[in-house]
Amino acid sequence: MTIEITRLNNTALRKSVQHRIDNKTKPLASLGRLEALALQLALIQNSETVTLISPQLVIFAADHGITAQGVSAYPSEVTAQMVGNMLAGGAAVSVLARQHGLALTIVDCGVKADFAPHSNLSVRKVSGARYGTADSTITQAMTPTQCESAIANGRALLNSLPGNVLLLGEMGIGNTSAAALIMSRLTGLPLHRCVGRGTGLDDDGLNRKIETLQRALNLHIDATKPMSILAALGGLEIATMVGAIFQAAIERRIIVVDGFITTAAVAIAAAIAPAVLEYCVFAHCSAESGHALWLTSLSASPLIDLGLRLGEGSGAALAWPLLKSAELLLAEMASFESAGVAEKSISQ
Amino acid sequence: MTIEITRLNNTALRKSVQHRIDNKTKPLASLGRLEALALQLALIQNSETVTLISPQLVIFAADHGITAQGVSAYPSEVTAQMVGNMLAGGAAVSVLARQHGLALTIVDCGVKADFAPHSNLSVRKVSGARYGTADSTITQAMTPTQCESAIANGRALLNSLPGNVLLLGEMGIGNTSAAALIMSRLTGLPLHRCVGRGTGLDDDGLNRKIETLQRALNLHIDATKPMSILAALGGLEIATMVGAIFQAAIERRIIVVDGFITTAAVAIAAAIAPAVLEYCVFAHCSAESGHALWLTSLSASPLIDLGLRLGEGSGAALAWPLLKSAELLLAEMASFESAGVAEKSISQ
Repeated sequence: MTIEITRLNNTALRKSVQHRIDNKTKPLASLGRLEALALQLALIQNSETVTLISPQLVIFAADHGITAQGVSAYPSEVTAQMVGNMLAGGAAVSVLARQHGLALTIVDCGVKADFAPHSNLSVRKVSGARYGTADSTITQAMTPTQCESAIANGRALLNSLPGNVLLLGEMGIGNTSAAALIMSRLTGLPLHRCVGRGTGLDDDGLNRKIETLQRALNLHIDATKPMSILAALGGLEIATMVGAIFQAAIERRIIVVDGFITTAAVAIAAAIAPAVLEYCVFAHCSAESGHALWLTSLSASPLIDLGLRLGEGSGAALAWPLLKSAELLLAEMASFESAGVAEKSISQ
Repeated sequence: MTIEITRLNNTALRKSVQHRIDNKTKPLASLGRLEALALQLALIQNSETVTLISPQLVIFAADHGITAQGVSAYPSEVTAQMVGNMLAGGAAVSVLARQHGLALTIVDCGVKADFAPHSNLSVRKVSGARYGTADSTITQAMTPTQCESAIANGRALLNSLPGNVLLLGEMGIGNTSAAALIMSRLTGLPLHRCVGRGTGLDDDGLNRKIETLQRALNLHIDATKPMSILAALGGLEIATMVGAIFQAAIERRIIVVDGFITTAAVAIAAAIAPAVLEYCVFAHCSAESGHALWLTSLSASPLIDLGLRLGEGSGAALAWPLLKSAELLLAEMASFESAGVAEKSISQ
């Protein structure tokens, strides 16, 4: 797999956009994180200004064989039920997508169900794993071929969508387990620092989850390269997302990362092609244990921190207006000169 | 002055709204801070649901006599210039108000200028202090009568505005000095923990500012009650804002607090009528030194933290979509029952 992603190293553009920001009618750097965000978006778009077009909020959904081990507080059927709820417009992410005018696509990457056709649904099941992964405590979650198919599906899907922004979301009972396994193996951190309560495990459930995941890690001790880790321990929605992330970065789209699971996909993608990180805006820090630590290890600063642990792309959708603000402030704020406002006194 | 503000102690309503939130299709508490926000907004509106109507972003502007002591990096004239920039639509807050459909009113509470009439301008100058406060290092910033007039102006202004949400903003070169003086006197904290760089003082400027403000504190050693503190050390925009806050809480409007200066007005108002705090949503934590500490002392948890230190109501405007999300999630998310989604397993 060859992934060619342009590094954002246009220093002349960086300098001229920063100059533009510094000459807006405000004390220097007083818009804080929004200034760095505006600069990043401009560099991604290789332009003095930012134009956000037709943002796509894509929810990657799949089921997980490891749920047979009792690692989640909710039964596996909830994945399909929540996909139905998203399509019907009643999920949190449905509400937030409507609020912000985000196009919403739900991708069936391997949900344990077959859905009736729907304008917001894209079916991208993988041959041999149509209804979810295998149980990674027993065998690899996906075969290498299945994993590569899922990545190819993600690339094809993204390529078919309009716009220049991809907002990541996911749904899959059991996927905090897959993400925690990926985190532990990729970062080398012990499992207990990577595993959280997911949808709401109690203490006993959490201990059982850690013990179960440790068995999966032990079984796949040889899975150390990103693609092997993804296949052995990951999920179909995570693999499909990896493909979408690659394609988005190749096409110079802005990628808005949601919580713990989408960070797993980004981390795998970045382990293969580090430049993808330059295209990522980290929307929020999840309350799922491990996410803050993982963000730190990726040198990522999330925009918001509201104690969310819902997934679905809810954090990405909530952060979206901040990207829009960065675009508009860069385009519409007056400069000191144009507004006739005095600059800082020379002697204070 | 009698301020009658209804306490938000409807425990039956609190219970039923919390029940409503808990039955939405999401893991319990997984929407984090948004859930507490939705509950607070419902309690303010005394209703099972939240309906945000015609939000008013009001920028209180005035000049400060203490700028003669060189406490700001920008000259006093910038207050009037920035009011002009706001009215012309080129300030950060103009851009953000347009983005979010917030009605914008700039209030001349005592700016050192006279403005041509404008549909977004409300002139609420105070007799004897039409062009700003006196220098609080020499005399009291306002006489008690001027201070009371400013508060009455704020109440009348708010009463004339439609809607059920007030978003606070301010503009006034020198007003981080007034706010720091109020903070130090109200909280008892030493001045160096309350004073920051404002629009961008260097180290020498900061030391001079602290030394200057210490002289003002020493001069007004007898100003210990909230109204005396406000008159002796405050500003016309802060006093007018105190009136607006009172009136908003009396009318059960939601109050969205911006940064350091607006927190000064809220703190004065709360020292007089503590129940106002129940109506306040703290939008963000400013990078202005002292703000985080002050929020903590008010037991306030800001929604966002983006290192902003611009004022103008920019933080309040940026947090606005989160209030809107809370409204919509409460209204539009499906319940487990309505969506046919399985609830948490009994055995995990």
